[in-house]
Amino acid sequence: MDTITVGQYVFERLKQLQVNTVFGLPGDFNLCLLDYLYKVDGMRWAGDTNELNASYAADGYARVKGIGALITTFGVGELSALNGIAGSYAEHVGVVHIVGVASTASQSKQLLLHHTLGNGDFNVFHRMSSYISKTTAWINDPQSAASEIDRCIREAYISQKPVYIGLPTNLVEEPVPTALLDTPIDLTVQPNNPSAEQEVLDTVLELIKSAKSPVIIVDSCASRHNVKDETHTLIATTQFPTFTTPMGKGVVNENNPRFGGVYVGSLSKPEVKQVVENADLILSVGALLSDFNTGSFSYSYGTKNVVEFHSDYIKIKSATYPGLNFRFVLQKLNESIKSLMTDYAPIEVPQMEGPLKADPSSKLTQQWLWTNLSTFLQPNDIVITETGTSAFGILQTKFPDNVLGISQVLWGSIGYSVGACCGAVAAAQELEKPRRVILFVGDGSLQLTVQAISTMIRHNLTPYIFVLNNQGYTIEKLIHGPNAGYNEIQIWDHLKLLPTFGAKNYDAIQVKTVGELDTMFRCADFARNDKIRLIDVVLEEMDAPINLVKQAELTAKTNASQ
Amino acid sequence: MDTITVGQYVFERLKQLQVNTVFGLPGDFNLCLLDYLYKVDGMRWAGDTNELNASYAADGYARVKGIGALITTFGVGELSALNGIAGSYAEHVGVVHIVGVASTASQSKQLLLHHTLGNGDFNVFHRMSSYISKTTAWINDPQSAASEIDRCIREAYISQKPVYIGLPTNLVEEPVPTALLDTPIDLTVQPNNPSAEQEVLDTVLELIKSAKSPVIIVDSCASRHNVKDETHTLIATTQFPTFTTPMGKGVVNENNPRFGGVYVGSLSKPEVKQVVENADLILSVGALLSDFNTGSFSYSYGTKNVVEFHSDYIKIKSATYPGLNFRFVLQKLNESIKSLMTDYAPIEVPQMEGPLKADPSSKLTQQWLWTNLSTFLQPNDIVITETGTSAFGILQTKFPDNVLGISQVLWGSIGYSVGACCGAVAAAQELEKPRRVILFVGDGSLQLTVQAISTMIRHNLTPYIFVLNNQGYTIEKLIHGPNAGYNEIQIWDHLKLLPTFGAKNYDAIQVKTVGELDTMFRCADFARNDKIRLIDVVLEEMDAPINLVKQAELTAKTNASQ
Repeated sequence: MDTITVGQYVFERLKQLQVNTVFGLPGDFNLCLLDYLYKVDGMRWAGDTNELNASYAADGYARVKGIGALITTFGVGELSALNGIAGSYAEHVGVVHIVGVASTASQSKQLLLHHTLGNGDFNVFHRMSSYISKTTAWINDPQSAASEIDRCIREAYISQKPVYIGLPTNLVEEPVPTALLDTPIDLTVQPNNPSAEQEVLDTVLELIKSAKSPVIIVDSCASRHNVKDETHTLIATTQFPTFTTPMGKGVVNENNPRFGGVYVGSLSKPEVKQVVENADLILSVGALLSDFNTGSFSYSYGTKNVVEFHSDYIKIKSATYPGLNFRFVLQKLNESIKSLMTDYAPIEVPQMEGPLKADPSSKLTQQWLWTNLSTFLQPNDIVITETGTSAFGILQTKFPDNVLGISQVLWGSIGYSVGACCGAVAAAQELEKPRRVILFVGDGSLQLTVQAISTMIRHNLTPYIFVLNNQGYTIEKLIHGPNAGYNEIQIWDHLKLLPTFGAKNYDAIQVKTVGELDTMFRCADFARNDKIRLIDVVLEEMDAPINLVKQAELTAKTNASQ
Repeated sequence: MDTITVGQYVFERLKQLQVNTVFGLPGDFNLCLLDYLYKVDGMRWAGDTNELNASYAADGYARVKGIGALITTFGVGELSALNGIAGSYAEHVGVVHIVGVASTASQSKQLLLHHTLGNGDFNVFHRMSSYISKTTAWINDPQSAASEIDRCIREAYISQKPVYIGLPTNLVEEPVPTALLDTPIDLTVQPNNPSAEQEVLDTVLELIKSAKSPVIIVDSCASRHNVKDETHTLIATTQFPTFTTPMGKGVVNENNPRFGGVYVGSLSKPEVKQVVENADLILSVGALLSDFNTGSFSYSYGTKNVVEFHSDYIKIKSATYPGLNFRFVLQKLNESIKSLMTDYAPIEVPQMEGPLKADPSSKLTQQWLWTNLSTFLQPNDIVITETGTSAFGILQTKFPDNVLGISQVLWGSIGYSVGACCGAVAAAQELEKPRRVILFVGDGSLQLTVQAISTMIRHNLTPYIFVLNNQGYTIEKLIHGPNAGYNEIQIWDHLKLLPTFGAKNYDAIQVKTVGELDTMFRCADFARNDKIRLIDVVLEEMDAPINLVKQAELTAKTNASQ
């Protein structure tokens, strides 16, 4: 066949980038497009339960596979996805949002179709999305369709930000040359300006040469823009003590002898704070420095020698070098640095706590849960935590190698984790070497996106869903209104959720004591992710990780400030 | 007390307009604001399960009480509500959207707070909302707070469109003079320009005088801008045959001897089509002429003598009279018209079908359901139907007097009806004379917003929830892809939903035959809305109201058009 349809072209391009599941919902403006998804071998339609869940799922999928996609319908569908898309924008996640829009004829006649504002303006939702998209395409002729699709997909992948493609119903079946598919989308990053790059390298090497107590801090963009290997080489070569931020947790292997824990400004453990803040050089890789990621901006380095490596610029002390990509800089740095490291004497790094001992009949606590979770985790696991007690508690858990941590620390939309879990587990089970996916979500956040569980059941996906059953929005109670009605929720019977959503092969278990959960964590049967599992973890209402308690105090203060 | 806080002021103002329930979710940027809700007697915080449901609920509440309100938090919360708000915009519903935003200090320092895009731009979400708001306020000083709040609430009420108020955390506790509350918000509509109004009246009276076979068509804006009384007087005075559109169904009492049924262009019943299209004058009240409301624009009047009465303009044939409000025009028309009507001989109007007879053991059909529903309905009921088989089927049901029909025909966001039901039932039970609320939703649409049921349980609200269990998105299957995977859904066990969400006092019943549902419709116990009820109505997958089948064909054609 010399030509294929525009509809099929989109899915062939996505598949070339290992996108094998597309998230979203049908709507009459995208049905013809969806027909072509089924024509591409190895493509799966998720068929989500609502667009917000679909957008979270596409984000979770992209965090595992590097890029994700969702399809919604004009107006109603696309607007429901905006919160999830904005989260991908804030947190650097490459998501392709394809919106099925009315035919070009309907648009030019300004018909008062359903799903419009009734004013003939077909472009308004596109304009709204443009604020939270790296780029957009409003396709209105078949000639430019292929190149516009390629441009958007490329941009999503390279920039790790969402993009928006509006595709009218009548263009889906237009032909484009099949041969276009033979040339892969160019995903290469432009090489850095050589002289600016050399200037950066020289300056950084000079700083390293004279440093006595340097440290490395790794944040989430090192994962999102995938410089994990370069970062591990930097650590191995320099032997500098290395820390992560909350959002960066998991990027550095925590069994690495040079890994010293999580740095969160004033909320850090004292021994971590001491090493970082007494350093005379900070090499910061992929920083995304929001309040929750920094203990409300309580970083207090003792040095001005800070080098920030970013995907699109490098900063050395006060000087910014725009347009430089950190991958090439780190690669060249790793080559040049070896000869410098001869007389650096590595200092000891802080160690994370091992599992706690406790009376098996004692009630479960957040402290026990997070510290002892490490006995259950395996290398390559994907651990998803919700903005709430989980995202803070997980910082106490020592990860095995290559664990991927997913948490929406900056955007912080409650309910995200359940939708993201659906996407992450779809991706994880498509990998050559499948990975287990383990979700921790509070009972309050779960209520926002609970029907994402139905989609996981539908596709026989087998995550572990730990529901932290503590009677409401504990994170909010800590910030303001511990006894306020608005922080309460309707109490659900979590154990009934899986059968209600039609699960056949599942486990639903409640645990209340240390002994019950400890037995579960050490059980070989439980460790095999051969079915979907929901574990209702009963915890005290106001029990919370200590770093969350402190963060909540800082947040309350910021919110009250004039 | 000489002053009250800005926070309390908002809720006092809303209460003055009979808003007694505020929808939304807590978030750390709105917690202090929510404290003041509890200080106002007779105010209830809904505590919804997600912001989309909250926005639908505020819309449903407003359709019953004339205005509704929801509170979300900056970024994450407000974006999740946008689809619902856009629906209120498209369908003329007055909703006040209050967003708790970061403190003015955080804004001016451009702090990289959670719930931001990480770029220091605090105004971006406000800009996105402005596209779907009649007006907005971004409050940044206590001096203008009260007047800005009043301006927005007034605008929502008068225009019946959503408005947006951004309220920073630190301004909530600022004082405003209590005395401001003594002057009610001015809700009067500006009088019409007298000479333009007189010109319209003269022209319309002239048209009426020479008409032999005039008809009245009533649409949804007659309800939203509340000219129901004026419309009923017009019908009584003129005795003209009167029809409604699909969106207008319920605005005219269907026992009115001059009510002739629903006009939907080519999808109308032949006897309706005949009367309307042979008329020599059409008086159209509150039209909102979208595709689903007009049988894909298949109106074919035989006359050019069309008068459109709108809330903000009047149109006579091709002439538009901007700025004229239909209330005053209709009132004056009703006064002047009496003397004209002496020699008009009313023609007969078509009648709606009565309940069907069928073998009690036969399987339920859509046709039987919708036609026989009238045996269950009572005067003053509120009937909510989802965009799907329900919104089309309900057109076959004869309503008792003063039934309020709620359906999102223009915006058509699936899942809307469940959220709207939560708001409508909250409003209905606050009325001096409470009303029953009866929801019809398909199994596919239910999945998008199912957790709204939890909120109804939480507040002991007692709707009837009829779930049309027909295995997927039947409306989509009719438009395109009857056997396509994307139109399938995960099958749920609907009878487990209420207990899963913690209901104690409830009924959950499945019906499959005509006899089972007929018995239920005629049961006195069932007729008392003393508990929440879910009725799982098992129907054939491709069974659909005939008007939906025809509409789906027209829609498929429009979508394919070049």
